[in-house]
Amino acid sequence: MPDRVVGSSWSPPALRPILYLIGGMLVALGFAMIIPAAVDLWVANPDWKAFAFGSVVTLACGGGLVYAARCRLTGGLTIRQAFVLTPLSWASVALFGALPLYFSDYAQLRDSFANAFFESTSGLTTTGATVIVGLDHAPPGVLLWRALLQWMGGIGIIATAIAILPALGVGGMQLFRTESSDRSEKVMPRVREIAAAIGMIYLGFTIACGLAYWAAGMSPFDAVAHALTTISTAGFSTSDNSLANWDNPAIHWIAVVFMVAGAIPFVLYVRLFRGEGDSLRDSQARAMLGLIAVFVGIMTAWLVWTGHYGFADALRHAALNVVSVITTTGFASADYGAWGNVAVGIFFGLMFTGGCTGSTTGGIKVFRYQVMAVMLRSHFLHLLYPRGVFPRTYGKRLLPDDVVVSVVVFFSLYFICYGALTVALMALDLDFLTSASAAVSALSNVGPGLGPIIGPAGNFATLPDAAKWLLSFGMLLGRLELFTVLILFFPQFWRG
Amino acid sequence: MPDRVVGSSWSPPALRPILYLIGGMLVALGFAMIIPAAVDLWVANPDWKAFAFGSVVTLACGGGLVYAARCRLTGGLTIRQAFVLTPLSWASVALFGALPLYFSDYAQLRDSFANAFFESTSGLTTTGATVIVGLDHAPPGVLLWRALLQWMGGIGIIATAIAILPALGVGGMQLFRTESSDRSEKVMPRVREIAAAIGMIYLGFTIACGLAYWAAGMSPFDAVAHALTTISTAGFSTSDNSLANWDNPAIHWIAVVFMVAGAIPFVLYVRLFRGEGDSLRDSQARAMLGLIAVFVGIMTAWLVWTGHYGFADALRHAALNVVSVITTTGFASADYGAWGNVAVGIFFGLMFTGGCTGSTTGGIKVFRYQVMAVMLRSHFLHLLYPRGVFPRTYGKRLLPDDVVVSVVVFFSLYFICYGALTVALMALDLDFLTSASAAVSALSNVGPGLGPIIGPAGNFATLPDAAKWLLSFGMLLGRLELFTVLILFFPQFWRG
Repeated sequence: MPDRVVGSSWSPPALRPILYLIGGMLVALGFAMIIPAAVDLWVANPDWKAFAFGSVVTLACGGGLVYAARCRLTGGLTIRQAFVLTPLSWASVALFGALPLYFSDYAQLRDSFANAFFESTSGLTTTGATVIVGLDHAPPGVLLWRALLQWMGGIGIIATAIAILPALGVGGMQLFRTESSDRSEKVMPRVREIAAAIGMIYLGFTIACGLAYWAAGMSPFDAVAHALTTISTAGFSTSDNSLANWDNPAIHWIAVVFMVAGAIPFVLYVRLFRGEGDSLRDSQARAMLGLIAVFVGIMTAWLVWTGHYGFADALRHAALNVVSVITTTGFASADYGAWGNVAVGIFFGLMFTGGCTGSTTGGIKVFRYQVMAVMLRSHFLHLLYPRGVFPRTYGKRLLPDDVVVSVVVFFSLYFICYGALTVALMALDLDFLTSASAAVSALSNVGPGLGPIIGPAGNFATLPDAAKWLLSFGMLLGRLELFTVLILFFPQFWRG
Repeated sequence: MPDRVVGSSWSPPALRPILYLIGGMLVALGFAMIIPAAVDLWVANPDWKAFAFGSVVTLACGGGLVYAARCRLTGGLTIRQAFVLTPLSWASVALFGALPLYFSDYAQLRDSFANAFFESTSGLTTTGATVIVGLDHAPPGVLLWRALLQWMGGIGIIATAIAILPALGVGGMQLFRTESSDRSEKVMPRVREIAAAIGMIYLGFTIACGLAYWAAGMSPFDAVAHALTTISTAGFSTSDNSLANWDNPAIHWIAVVFMVAGAIPFVLYVRLFRGEGDSLRDSQARAMLGLIAVFVGIMTAWLVWTGHYGFADALRHAALNVVSVITTTGFASADYGAWGNVAVGIFFGLMFTGGCTGSTTGGIKVFRYQVMAVMLRSHFLHLLYPRGVFPRTYGKRLLPDDVVVSVVVFFSLYFICYGALTVALMALDLDFLTSASAAVSALSNVGPGLGPIIGPAGNFATLPDAAKWLLSFGMLLGRLELFTVLILFFPQFWRG
């Protein structure tokens, strides 16, 4: 196994095991495409051919990779291999996931690969921004495939956050591990049991959510499609009007409950099922719930005060849209862009929060703000007492220095990427609000932006292709916690 | 001297020496007001009474403070006293500096203290945002006072950055000190010789700049007023059209040269005069010049390509406006908001750079980006080689850990303040581009924002009073490097 030699100069990591694993993922993806093909066939929609063809191509490429790069993975991956695997596998799945959309009869997707790739990436990264106008009349296969991509992306990011990122020192989950937190040179797949438990919980929530939507009045198809995109805090809908299409309080409240459920660290549920009661005291989840309560309260008051709604409707619309943005889902029950500059400002700010780490949400995430607060406090104390020593603690544990550094570097990197993406979009002649909100929406995997073009009542369809490619890159960048992608642009990475 | 007892609980620092020093500053300010009074009297403008009255009030208050709080300062100040002194003295000078404006016959200033205080703060902090419409016909006293406030603010911030902030561990100048860099509990005023040399250089540059403007065709009064606001990278003009009022290439290039001169660390000039030749190799100054060259080049190309100007004019307008934004001056030679979304995006991004630390510029400043780059590089190396040790160096010196922490905390704090200020302005029903650009313009002490209201062709006059107070606070916050102001909101600060 020549790829286990670490330290050789000027050499990329051995690609064989990486390609082998990506091949395996593509095979799984190819099989998943059979589901929308079957549904389209069932309703006699000719689009089934797009999915069948996409499935064949994906299975062939995936199977080919598995065969050509076959190897044993008993030794695990080196850190560099895992860094290459993570963005490359997500980009590959997004690319092949776009194929059936591009092959479809659906004009908006067929005519521009940028559209198909944007839609697929927005799905897989659980962003929820769409380029399709006329979802209400779209073929069921396309709608189901979009929802499935989000569902797979949701469980995929939890698996990545639990199994891969901590070993890479990225994403902050190392802070929450119950196991020994020593980093080893090898990425160990020994978190499989936890992953399996989380998979069952994810599936259970999805089924519960779908049944609830159905019971509340959605058609079975809509209930399934929205269940897949609610628990994954992803936000694709089967209607151009998103959840505003169902003016049904029960449906809206079900969405709120399951978006929140998807934004809580899934390891907490595992601990809860194991009877470890202190999991309810998780400081990150509590902070997020507090944040939600405060901003739902503010927004409800604003909506009542300005006469937009009566109290009950104000509370419902505030809850759905605030929770949707904080959890980076992207559903909308109303055009909150029309609620006034105050509301736009608050929603813009909330796009920068994100939910909890280890959940399906994107963005900066609550724990980073908590670590930052600890850091600020200790820095201020240091300014006051230059000779004092101030231990930094989080949830009664000492914060390791490398986690603190990782968080502050993440913040700075996030805002640098955000600024660069905003300016790049403006360079494509998009206006300021569109550019600035599209940039944060992509990086935080929220979905809709703000303003008349890409706001909750708008659509990404009219953006230039270059903007769609930039935003697709931004979605992957944000989804994979920046470092994992950016490290590949770092010259030393390729020197072994 | 009871105020030297450090460590007692629940007690603010002794205010006596702080009030004594502020009293002294107010006395100086009161004497400075005699200058515009004399000028107004000379041209027989009745506004001289406003300055005379302001001078009397300021001298009385300042003199009263000096007398009431008289004490010996042989022991220096404690760190907490210096933390209180810094924002309190700047706010006091801004407040008393607003008095003659408020007392004046000039309707816009007389009718609203928010306007007078905004104008005074914008002056003192060398921001350059104005609420006055009709500068071209304003009384000379008002124009001169605005320019004097900026000039005093410019030398004031250099003095603060050299003499006070390093001892507080704020602002990064501790990195550039030639003296022993041990922090002591006492703020020592032994940098007086350097301060005197810098004062002479500042005065020399001002005179040179004024003579150059005069020689190039400005009236003597305009030349003096603009010299005072150019070297201080501050940006108040005597015309609503700023430097666009003089369509004179020589004047514009003189402005470019002296804005750059004001954005370079003034200690470099001192070293240069002492014959320490390696000062020219200062990595921060060179990085800033490189940044200017790159963006002047890009903007020139853009202006030529889009047919806005021929090459020579494009280069001049690009140089003046890019340098004006990077150095946080705020002059404009054209309405660059009308140069298209690309230009708006670039100017917006440049508002976040700032010049060099230890100069008169505001904002994040180039050295922080350099430290951040060092930090990012070492973090990426750490991700690749978790067991490696990677020393962080800057300009051949090892970067002390506390400087690195201070820089990353500053970045995060800057963006948190920026976001909060933007949302607060939107809550006052300002649109997004106005709010977002006003927030960075205030925090970075640039001057004009972007968009039709407060852009280079616009004015802050029409903003609601609450926005003017918020922005005034933002200017002081940014001018004093955030920490110095925010630490006062930290409960532990007041516990001794």
